[in-house]
Amino acid sequence: MTFDSLWDDLAGIGRDGRRGGFSRHGFDDAELTMREWFTEQADRRGLGVHADGNGNLWAWWGAPASGAVVTGSHLDSVPGGGAFDGPLGVVSALLALDALRARGFRPARPLAVVVFAEEEGGRFGVPCLGSRLLTGALAPCAALGLTDPDGVTLASALGRAGLDPERVGADAAVLARIGTFVELHVEQGRGLVTLDAAVGVAASILAHGRWRLSFSGEGNHAGTTALGDRRDPVLPAAQTVLAARWSASTVDGARATVGRIVANPGGTNVIASTVDVWLDARAPSTSDARAVVDDIVAAGHRAAASEGCVLTVREESYSDTVVFDAALRDRMSAALGGAPVLPTGAGHDAGILAAAGVPAAMVFVRNPTGVSHAPAEHAERSDCLAGVDALTAVLAHLTS
Amino acid sequence: MTFDSLWDDLAGIGRDGRRGGFSRHGFDDAELTMREWFTEQADRRGLGVHADGNGNLWAWWGAPASGAVVTGSHLDSVPGGGAFDGPLGVVSALLALDALRARGFRPARPLAVVVFAEEEGGRFGVPCLGSRLLTGALAPCAALGLTDPDGVTLASALGRAGLDPERVGADAAVLARIGTFVELHVEQGRGLVTLDAAVGVAASILAHGRWRLSFSGEGNHAGTTALGDRRDPVLPAAQTVLAARWSASTVDGARATVGRIVANPGGTNVIASTVDVWLDARAPSTSDARAVVDDIVAAGHRAAASEGCVLTVREESYSDTVVFDAALRDRMSAALGGAPVLPTGAGHDAGILAAAGVPAAMVFVRNPTGVSHAPAEHAERSDCLAGVDALTAVLAHLTS
Repeated sequence: MTFDSLWDDLAGIGRDGRRGGFSRHGFDDAELTMREWFTEQADRRGLGVHADGNGNLWAWWGAPASGAVVTGSHLDSVPGGGAFDGPLGVVSALLALDALRARGFRPARPLAVVVFAEEEGGRFGVPCLGSRLLTGALAPCAALGLTDPDGVTLASALGRAGLDPERVGADAAVLARIGTFVELHVEQGRGLVTLDAAVGVAASILAHGRWRLSFSGEGNHAGTTALGDRRDPVLPAAQTVLAARWSASTVDGARATVGRIVANPGGTNVIASTVDVWLDARAPSTSDARAVVDDIVAAGHRAAASEGCVLTVREESYSDTVVFDAALRDRMSAALGGAPVLPTGAGHDAGILAAAGVPAAMVFVRNPTGVSHAPAEHAERSDCLAGVDALTAVLAHLTS
Repeated sequence: MTFDSLWDDLAGIGRDGRRGGFSRHGFDDAELTMREWFTEQADRRGLGVHADGNGNLWAWWGAPASGAVVTGSHLDSVPGGGAFDGPLGVVSALLALDALRARGFRPARPLAVVVFAEEEGGRFGVPCLGSRLLTGALAPCAALGLTDPDGVTLASALGRAGLDPERVGADAAVLARIGTFVELHVEQGRGLVTLDAAVGVAASILAHGRWRLSFSGEGNHAGTTALGDRRDPVLPAAQTVLAARWSASTVDGARATVGRIVANPGGTNVIASTVDVWLDARAPSTSDARAVVDDIVAAGHRAAASEGCVLTVREESYSDTVVFDAALRDRMSAALGGAPVLPTGAGHDAGILAAAGVPAAMVFVRNPTGVSHAPAEHAERSDCLAGVDALTAVLAHLTS
């Protein structure tokens, strides 16, 4: 099984003809096809594969046991996302196991490959849904009622995928099996390009979260309603978009983004009655991230009030700054011949596990443009192969 | 057949559970059901009913002939619209014919009821689609390729509705039959409330149009892309929304609205690659409307340039100021015992016909809140009945 053959298997699943790239969201048809593909690959290798209560897939080399070295990533994407974010880590995990077995390697600790569910939060809004539920960072009661844009609940989507919503929630037994977690991922910036290295090791993840800002005003006719009589929620929403950029620019290393904005009912000749703005904000520290968000929300409230609108804010997810286990990070860097160590602004399941006390680490693969979450996301084939070699070396080192 | 029974027929068609109100768009299932209802009502009355080449429905009292008095409106809605905008004019037209026939009235000129197709432009973007095509204000080649949000073309939607896209286009023979057009419509403001009158007669319609402003930037990761490296089209889109309100506020009687804004691909953790902003702008004169739009577009270009984005602008429709036929207007006001005459900011098929040289007029029915294009749109039953009486009187007067 070569890198190319596994990669080609995935090239046709969940293509998004309208947006470009791929749209594969938690438990939708495309992601279920990806999961079937993973199950088949695990079966072919004689790995025991099963879903945990939160819809994460586990494939074990040998019997599941505590203290295992686990690797893997996710198979879902953002809407119109690239091919590499997620699948590269899963494909590389399978190939690293193949490489270890081909050379007759006998691990001293159990090894498993995991596929986490809905990492991007592209369908139900909460990123790292599978790992947050597993670790208890998200309560089942808060998760099961989450809805996708069509109003389908997570509970219903799980049921349709043959999973039991009653089993959703923190699972100490499953978590205890993860002695060490290593996630390989395409880099989502140009750090490795600057360092002239094919692979690197993650140092830390920015504090980050998502907030839904809902502005409500009064729907009316765009032609007949005088400007002075309007309560148009699109105006404070627009002011908040601008405030987000401004507020983030005042804090070193902070980012704030609105990539999703929905005006309801959405008619051209209709003053909107409500507007939902999804805010993604990140910063090096929680205090910085909270300060940026507070600033944006305050600007939103002021703008809403001046248009006779009302703003309500809901935090959809929040993750504190993650500094990966320093000893593990340094061992990995050394095992890779002194691979560079670099930070990232992107959240990952590895970060959720680290926050839950699991020794976790990440291997990054060079991205020539740094573009991610877009069809142009890329890694050269030779760098992908270097990533597989690196992951193989790390797994061998950690299970020797 | 009473007002209540006809009104109740329509209450269940095209309800929008998510937005509230009704969503009935040109040739979709809900609008086709509305059209079937109209055809059945016309059949029951022994009116000869047929669709013209542009999908407008005609029901004739007697044989179709030139110089007829035509009344009617439309059965489609904006997304999540009210019950009255459109259907009130069709229901009132049928009841006015019933009233004339019940009293044994013999019209000296032919009479017809018309239902114009896709008046709101809620599906294909161009308002008054049926009347624009009929009068030649919109060319078939420009119309047939229009797409709905799912990418379905008008040509394909017509075919699905059993209509022949080859027949779309200006039809002088059909147009010549309209000697006079009278459209009854719920008022979309509080003019009649202020005047303390149940019904009134339209004086004029603001110049108005729709423009699609497409901002393109660079899709990327919301967490890893430094602020300085971004080309985020949501920012200039937001600045343009604010510019629209500001520019309109500088011109007396002007309005500019953004009620529809779509960021692509629309992921929370994704910097958008493109944003489409639909601008609705109106003013008392074409020079004022053009000045407002030019100002907004210039602001959009400046904002786009400062974020490294590109703005392209497409005019989707434009209608010059309409001043309804003064003699007809005054005859109608007199026939209604001196009903008040008042202007409107809303476009109507009556305005398209007037611009094509057809003597056209409108009867407005009082709207207690003035709200329109929203579920709260309303007219009291007693005012609706007064509207039917007024339309009956006007039709009797014009066909005597």
